[in-house]
Amino acid sequence: MSAETLLDRASLASLPPSELRGLFTEGAWGKPTLGLALGYLQANLAVVPKEDAWDFLLFCQRNPKPCPLMEVTDPGSPIVHEIAPGADLSTSLPRYRVFKDGTLESEPYDVRDQWPDDAVAFLLGCSLTFEAALLNAGVPMRHLEADRNAPVYVTNVACRPAGKFSGPLVVSMRPIPADLVARAVTITSRYPWGHGAPMHIGDPGALGITALEGVDFGDAPVMRPGDVPVFWGCGITPQLAVAQAKSRYMIAHYPEHMFIADRTSEADAVG
Amino acid sequence: MSAETLLDRASLASLPPSELRGLFTEGAWGKPTLGLALGYLQANLAVVPKEDAWDFLLFCQRNPKPCPLMEVTDPGSPIVHEIAPGADLSTSLPRYRVFKDGTLESEPYDVRDQWPDDAVAFLLGCSLTFEAALLNAGVPMRHLEADRNAPVYVTNVACRPAGKFSGPLVVSMRPIPADLVARAVTITSRYPWGHGAPMHIGDPGALGITALEGVDFGDAPVMRPGDVPVFWGCGITPQLAVAQAKSRYMIAHYPEHMFIADRTSEADAVG
Repeated sequence: MSAETLLDRASLASLPPSELRGLFTEGAWGKPTLGLALGYLQANLAVVPKEDAWDFLLFCQRNPKPCPLMEVTDPGSPIVHEIAPGADLSTSLPRYRVFKDGTLESEPYDVRDQWPDDAVAFLLGCSLTFEAALLNAGVPMRHLEADRNAPVYVTNVACRPAGKFSGPLVVSMRPIPADLVARAVTITSRYPWGHGAPMHIGDPGALGITALEGVDFGDAPVMRPGDVPVFWGCGITPQLAVAQAKSRYMIAHYPEHMFIADRTSEADAVG
Repeated sequence: MSAETLLDRASLASLPPSELRGLFTEGAWGKPTLGLALGYLQANLAVVPKEDAWDFLLFCQRNPKPCPLMEVTDPGSPIVHEIAPGADLSTSLPRYRVFKDGTLESEPYDVRDQWPDDAVAFLLGCSLTFEAALLNAGVPMRHLEADRNAPVYVTNVACRPAGKFSGPLVVSMRPIPADLVARAVTITSRYPWGHGAPMHIGDPGALGITALEGVDFGDAPVMRPGDVPVFWGCGITPQLAVAQAKSRYMIAHYPEHMFIADRTSEADAVG
């Protein structure tokens, strides 16, 4: 199977995670992972120097809704043990971002030659998991229907700080029909690695959001009559905390170019 | 209310957590916390030097079933922020154990004058939470009926190590009538801070347990006809890991003398 035949998302859709990671490693796919390996966990990547790892680990522990921590590697090693045993984080994502002292330096397709000796990698859950579960349960996703990204807001709620990491809580919002809000809560609460249950329901003002149209990231919302705004913790929260901390270096996934695990979403579902 | 009038467990049973912690601080109660502040979270305490805190935090993150991490303090501070805001961990437990280089040194009723400048405190969930929920749901607890402690076994399954912390998985066992095993699973899965869902059901041999009578801690089990052995992660797991690591110092709760939080068990229940 040559790289050329693989530039079509549909032909990748049925491949298992390990084969997808293999293609990413070969450089055959440098595009978003949305729609690939459905049913498997996808993860945000954040790699920081050992000297900052304690603070960041504690930041995630103290803010589990926006920062659901799936796995932490041993210092200096890019190898995953638990959610995708043996996977090499320095090559098995489609694309990366490399920051030095808080400034974006490059956006390479692998970082195998620049994995620092003191690097600790954090894999954090993302919202793909719970969106799939909501759709399966008949809860509409307005942004997907409109082919948009979910609206994301920087709130006036502070995360619990940990050492050099601090910052505002960032939330994503999905408009949910009023009669399906309870279902959306019970379903997403089953996936703590997918941000879990909503953090706020129905009152944007309580988060300091004055107008839902004024998004900070993503696209403006599509609200239908009877929809209630429902807010979940968002993975941009740790990104902002890492950015303001200006670590000596930071390696992250390129937006929407996630790590695909061997673990299914259901394997860690609760209840 | 003088200390003398308080030496009766029944008179304490209706007090809220903050008043109980106040009594412990005054030295008015140096006994087990079982049966006190029903419905509130109780926690194991483990205090280690900052130099070992990264490894221990990672050990808990990698072994969440036996080591459900509720809160971590800032280095040098005994103050709780989240589950009992303002509580001082150096005085608000009924009794402590202090280890130096892995050896038990004292069993004081407070450690206010010996809280090290570099100490990091970890509060870990315990099984009291889920036992109460099981009883409420009509699932019998054989050991409580017989006024015994639950049987506890050191398994032949290794925890995922983290730096200097490693050791075997330790499990507690409760015999559950076969028609209630599913109920026991769904109920305990709601309490990730109470060790969550069982780790094994029905096959002691798979954990290296050759005879259920041969407990490593607690009391021998009381099995009734039709009971199935159900195994949950146990808080002795991190204690063994800490003991073998021989930290410069370690401060722990005295067994069964737990920290009582202001947070209810239900506040963090899932689903």
